[in-house]
Amino acid sequence: MENAGMITSTGNGKVKRLVQLGTSARARNEAGVFLAEGPRIFREIPEEDLTGIFVSESFMAENARSFPAGVPVEVLTDRVFAHAADTETPQGILAVVRQKQASFREITNASAPFLLVLERIQNPGNLGTMLRTAECAGVTGIMISKDSADIYNPKTVRGSMGSVLRVPVLCMDDLTEGVRMLKESGIRVFAASLDGKNAYCEECYTGGTAFLIGSEGSGLSKKLSACADVQVRIPMEGRAESLNAAAASAVLMYEVHRQRM
Amino acid sequence: MENAGMITSTGNGKVKRLVQLGTSARARNEAGVFLAEGPRIFREIPEEDLTGIFVSESFMAENARSFPAGVPVEVLTDRVFAHAADTETPQGILAVVRQKQASFREITNASAPFLLVLERIQNPGNLGTMLRTAECAGVTGIMISKDSADIYNPKTVRGSMGSVLRVPVLCMDDLTEGVRMLKESGIRVFAASLDGKNAYCEECYTGGTAFLIGSEGSGLSKKLSACADVQVRIPMEGRAESLNAAAASAVLMYEVHRQRM
Repeated sequence: MENAGMITSTGNGKVKRLVQLGTSARARNEAGVFLAEGPRIFREIPEEDLTGIFVSESFMAENARSFPAGVPVEVLTDRVFAHAADTETPQGILAVVRQKQASFREITNASAPFLLVLERIQNPGNLGTMLRTAECAGVTGIMISKDSADIYNPKTVRGSMGSVLRVPVLCMDDLTEGVRMLKESGIRVFAASLDGKNAYCEECYTGGTAFLIGSEGSGLSKKLSACADVQVRIPMEGRAESLNAAAASAVLMYEVHRQRM
Repeated sequence: MENAGMITSTGNGKVKRLVQLGTSARARNEAGVFLAEGPRIFREIPEEDLTGIFVSESFMAENARSFPAGVPVEVLTDRVFAHAADTETPQGILAVVRQKQASFREITNASAPFLLVLERIQNPGNLGTMLRTAECAGVTGIMISKDSADIYNPKTVRGSMGSVLRVPVLCMDDLTEGVRMLKESGIRVFAASLDGKNAYCEECYTGGTAFLIGSEGSGLSKKLSACADVQVRIPMEGRAESLNAAAASAVLMYEVHRQRM
């Protein structure tokens, strides 16, 4: 492997741009791309969504492989790659991937749609876990408020283990409008709330179902919660004040899955 | 408030000791203590388990409060407190708390014991979430392998939202021996496994129940998995390889809770 074109400086413009795409949601959104790190997720990226590939020198040496034609590939020294990568143990390959915004039709496209509606989720890791659990539980789509963590935050992409590539996500300014549309489509909307009247497992989820999940710190806003058809709670023993948002949504989503099995 | 005794230097021996207790599991275990940060968890610490209190200058100024007699209280300048604290936004109060090792009897002390057996859980945040969900789902105790993340890691303590103070935890060198004891006590042992024969929700959990949960990366060891009475899997749609360990254990624990309601 000749290294004529290898990038050897963290001051290189392309490297600076990579770091920017990793750290700034605005930069990602303006460019309409995000970063996905590691060979595992790389294999899952549809070729037409790849806009750039960055690999470390050692990755290149250890993985003789062909990359899709027409996608620019840059080789970085290991030190420069580690600088650009978000993880503590860089995995040698970083892809620049096209963002996808799903339509309302896409997130509800099923005989019995099953949605997660996320309001102001703050923690990127939690959000990634939610995306991953959602895919596993058979969610048909996710609706998320613009003031949530960015689904393309590198921590979210990593926590989702690739689900961010596969679960349709619609990002909305106004979730109350989104919920109105869901109800108009005949989808029953459940608000997860600490003081919900019914236990979550006393409801029926075999028809079109959507769960409203609020932020880790303060739960659902009153305004959005009031839009739901039913308030449900997850019963809790002991003295903890609440469940972790990702754990709570896992419990709810798998109750739907169980009932639909 | 006079500041005659205020600690103003990060080089102070007590501050160095605090940092050590925050960063080193060995230091914590040798001293038999751990750190709990913030006023919320502070209120829950039984007085007899408190061995020291560290507060920031502004916390002291804003919260005129009395501390339990006989527990040494140190006031730190805000800068020094921020240095000692583990969080990005320090909450002004750090408690040094006695560790508690539960006995086998304590973790199984119920008419229908309900246990989580954790093998090599690596992520302190995941472990904290598991402790919190365990308390909420009514788990009677946790058994954890010595090579897991430390339940007293500050990230675990924080993620547990105080549950680490309330859920009995028994740390063991050899989990196979622990599982043998559980089975001898008439507790049915379920291994959570990707290739389990039965779906988790096809089993009955109203009697004594224990779940074996393996590490995030590699799941349960064959050796431990082979000790279980039944292998169960959580059915998954889509193409993700597995659920996050904290999400998976939430689904399992709440199925037990649902059946016992």
